[in-house]
Amino acid sequence: METVLPMTSGSGLEGLLAHFSAMPPAAAMGIGIDHYDGDGLCLTAPLSLHVNDKGCAFGGSLASLMTLAGWGLVTLRAETVGVESDVFVASSQLDYLAPLYADLRAQARLEPGADWTRFSDRLRERGRASIHLQVEVALPEGGIATRGRARYVAIARR
Amino acid sequence: METVLPMTSGSGLEGLLAHFSAMPPAAAMGIGIDHYDGDGLCLTAPLSLHVNDKGCAFGGSLASLMTLAGWGLVTLRAETVGVESDVFVASSQLDYLAPLYADLRAQARLEPGADWTRFSDRLRERGRASIHLQVEVALPEGGIATRGRARYVAIARR
Repeated sequence: METVLPMTSGSGLEGLLAHFSAMPPAAAMGIGIDHYDGDGLCLTAPLSLHVNDKGCAFGGSLASLMTLAGWGLVTLRAETVGVESDVFVASSQLDYLAPLYADLRAQARLEPGADWTRFSDRLRERGRASIHLQVEVALPEGGIATRGRARYVAIARR
Repeated sequence: METVLPMTSGSGLEGLLAHFSAMPPAAAMGIGIDHYDGDGLCLTAPLSLHVNDKGCAFGGSLASLMTLAGWGLVTLRAETVGVESDVFVASSQLDYLAPLYADLRAQARLEPGADWTRFSDRLRERGRASIHLQVEVALPEGGIATRGRARYVAIARR
């Protein structure tokens, strides 16, 4: 939990971590930010907090961390539009391909064919925009533990 | 957490609760069993542990509880086959239809067209079987908060 900061109302990565630490289910997950480069966000969480009865990562924890990685990426991008908005996950499809016996690292990025410019324009003009992301948890030895896609909606606050 | 029992190696609903309390991510969720009737399993969790930045249930928590409801149902059915097995979630598709401002209640049941007899026969004969479930979180005022389907695999222990 070394990167989880006290709650602030800030924006950017500090604001994101403040959001996580203020949300009970996210605060319990031990989330860290591995990297963010504008197009992708990678979150981490220790296996010890997410281990199942078989000694590997619990599917629900993988789903939670992947949901938060996507939510965080859309939240960070929505901030750059300059419209105060709430971000919701609308749908998700996940495939659990292989068990993960290591710390969790969930990477969210834009789905091929999706477009941040269109997302930003719609949010600014209509007060509502949606975007499809790819989310992935890699195996440390190479290959994929869990892969999926999710749709998020940003709605301007009234 | 009133229905979370100390860890035992038991089977049935007590064994299921023992599994949850022995799994760190599930133990943190405050899970209770609402009902189980052989064909459906309904799990509960308090909103206070699963609330997001908008005051409603976090999508990842909904995904986790739904994953566990399905996992629990398949685990209970696999026990009746008499083959010691591990149960994994293989895939899931979830639609988040409306925000939930109340405690979480996730119901898992067999998907229409799926068949417990076929599942049991395969697990007994091949040591491996999969099954599709429907999972749903209802709104207390009527209607659906989150709906989905998931595939689970049971694999006999060697």
